[in-house]
Amino acid sequence: MASLSPTKKHRVAVIGSGNWGTTIAKVIAENTKANPDLFEETVQMWVFEEEVQIPESSEHFDRGSALCTKPQKLTHIINSIHENVKYLPGVPLPSNIVGNPSLEETVKEASILIFNLPHQFIEKACDQLQGKILPFARGISCIKGIEVSDKGIELFSEWIGRKLGIYCGALSGANIATEVALEKWSETTVAYDPPSMDSSQPSPQGSPKTSQINLGEMSGRAEDSSKKVKMMALPAEYPPLSHENVKKIFHRPYFHVRMVDDVAGVSLGGALKNIVAVAAGFVDGLGWGDNAKAAVMRVGLLEEVKFGKMFFEKSVKTATFTEESCGVADMITSCSGGRNFRCAKMSVEKGMSINEVEKQELNGQKLQGTSTAYEVNGFLKSQGLEDEFPLFTAVYNILEGNKKPEDIPKLLEAPSKYR
Amino acid sequence: MASLSPTKKHRVAVIGSGNWGTTIAKVIAENTKANPDLFEETVQMWVFEEEVQIPESSEHFDRGSALCTKPQKLTHIINSIHENVKYLPGVPLPSNIVGNPSLEETVKEASILIFNLPHQFIEKACDQLQGKILPFARGISCIKGIEVSDKGIELFSEWIGRKLGIYCGALSGANIATEVALEKWSETTVAYDPPSMDSSQPSPQGSPKTSQINLGEMSGRAEDSSKKVKMMALPAEYPPLSHENVKKIFHRPYFHVRMVDDVAGVSLGGALKNIVAVAAGFVDGLGWGDNAKAAVMRVGLLEEVKFGKMFFEKSVKTATFTEESCGVADMITSCSGGRNFRCAKMSVEKGMSINEVEKQELNGQKLQGTSTAYEVNGFLKSQGLEDEFPLFTAVYNILEGNKKPEDIPKLLEAPSKYR
Repeated sequence: MASLSPTKKHRVAVIGSGNWGTTIAKVIAENTKANPDLFEETVQMWVFEEEVQIPESSEHFDRGSALCTKPQKLTHIINSIHENVKYLPGVPLPSNIVGNPSLEETVKEASILIFNLPHQFIEKACDQLQGKILPFARGISCIKGIEVSDKGIELFSEWIGRKLGIYCGALSGANIATEVALEKWSETTVAYDPPSMDSSQPSPQGSPKTSQINLGEMSGRAEDSSKKVKMMALPAEYPPLSHENVKKIFHRPYFHVRMVDDVAGVSLGGALKNIVAVAAGFVDGLGWGDNAKAAVMRVGLLEEVKFGKMFFEKSVKTATFTEESCGVADMITSCSGGRNFRCAKMSVEKGMSINEVEKQELNGQKLQGTSTAYEVNGFLKSQGLEDEFPLFTAVYNILEGNKKPEDIPKLLEAPSKYR
Repeated sequence: MASLSPTKKHRVAVIGSGNWGTTIAKVIAENTKANPDLFEETVQMWVFEEEVQIPESSEHFDRGSALCTKPQKLTHIINSIHENVKYLPGVPLPSNIVGNPSLEETVKEASILIFNLPHQFIEKACDQLQGKILPFARGISCIKGIEVSDKGIELFSEWIGRKLGIYCGALSGANIATEVALEKWSETTVAYDPPSMDSSQPSPQGSPKTSQINLGEMSGRAEDSSKKVKMMALPAEYPPLSHENVKKIFHRPYFHVRMVDDVAGVSLGGALKNIVAVAAGFVDGLGWGDNAKAAVMRVGLLEEVKFGKMFFEKSVKTATFTEESCGVADMITSCSGGRNFRCAKMSVEKGMSINEVEKQELNGQKLQGTSTAYEVNGFLKSQGLEDEFPLFTAVYNILEGNKKPEDIPKLLEAPSKYR
């Protein structure tokens, strides 16, 4: 079967310009330049506009320059000196990144939308984007975390997809933004699996191919028809978004990408590992050594798998957790020295509650691990499934003061789930 | 089908009394006492006899006691004060452990033989045991490591089984002996999968059931008939050695056991992780951070799986590596602060060769990780398979000075095996 040769290139837009957003824009801009057959070189990056003073410590600071005498628009700084001095200072950005204060302008004609902004801003951004994007655009969410309540679990990628009527994949891995920005080697996982109509075959003139997919297959185990969205096929004028081509958006010599199909697994790994890191911190705080810490991590990894398989049974694969960067590697990193691990460890060592540690160390900001532990517990309770996840449940009960870190071995032994 | 009620109990003997041997004997003696329906309470432990002076720092030291005035036989000390003052000082042992200087006496009437001695002593011990053990005895090897040469790979459990004509399983996990001895919580994996004739059904009078099994399914991929051994069924007078009952030999509230079938996977994990730990040390020595270290660990884990599947395809399961203590957890522990990790890290940080580090830090003793890397490389080379294992091969080439630690990302990227 002969296929038409694509006449268009993909335009990639990045929605978000914080620490991680700017880092990913840098990665992508390097790749659009390196793959001119697939991508337009320019990468528009949406910047929440603010006035910023270039600090004297910056290598771009020049007392004589008009740019430095008073605060400037952040987009103006980014586009002049090619550095995000506020959120990624010291890292030179490729000149083909264009900071753009208008969300609508940023996504204009973009066939690939990269979502990378703090989760509390997604809803507003999506509201503004409705009707402004190409109807056949494809998204990738780099936003970590999941929305869990006693009503169900929702992935940010699903939420974006439903809100905008597009397919949205996910990127997650053992990635600390600053290390990626400095081109220290790491790996990541990209999940991308649009319905099969998304082939390279042309759609009949005037009648774009569509497909109905069920986003959000889980919400309290009931089918929820409001989550079904119509998706439009990618026109044949564009290079197909095969795994090989999607990989080329992100893969760098210092940022190795593995492609998978499992969007739910990729998203869950990045959220649930924070509960495991709290447990690892508890055990390490007791001075029980590396064996005990590794045991908590192993049990935690299997509870992640079980959670995924139980609530996203159609899509989740064990290997996403046990073999990919978004699973085992991200968990290892988080249990090595991440904030959740460190604060939980400190709470045991100093005999403080996590609340007190959060107040003292984080100005009262909540740890992701503790909020996820509470949210997941609320959901498991509503399903009558607390006993099926003894480690997640133990973390919740320790946070609540019902159990002690010393009880963990017994709590894991009791229900014989992991024999 | 009615089954006869067992009239005999299992007698367990431990062959070895070093740090790990004594620790495992302690674990087992606690369990024989706790399960009087299955096991005889007394656990004989073979001690390589030597004269030992109880140190003044020991809580058992008493200037007036005859035991303390001059060196005593180690078995005498163990059986008098219930402590192995030389190899596990400060840990009280259960009084049902009996130190025995005679190998033959130790294994007398024992239906379960636990092998736990340094691997260089196994051959001699097995020579002495031939013809002295119950012909239907079952073994479990707690000896870490594998024998690799360019001729093939052999597991110690297989080697013991062939030499003694018995079935031999394996125990391995994220277990530092001293931590287990101090009852700090950890997990372990026990692989036990004798041929199916090993059921609880009685054998016809006078004609014990036997079965021929092929131990050592791999040696350079050629079938090796010398490795076939005849095994005798366990008589029906004994409680069956189901996974449930084998677990009861080892499981403690502080030492959680998971049972699997995959003897080869359990043994390989404990050996190959040392190569991964060297790689993790190299990368950490470069200051590349936790992401890079986690990436090396993830790739290493998948090379372990691939190695197992390629050379022990009949028995090895992915999950043994990705889900069990002997796999992912042991690798995490070894890459956290083990000797292989620390020395490799130091070699990069100080710009020394591993040889120099071994001389300076280990009095010239070889690291397990480096010798295993060389052995595995020799074997892979002989099979023409070096390129299939880019991380193992990278470690070898860095040790040899052909490559640098900085090359690791590129070496892992090149053959695209891990996309």
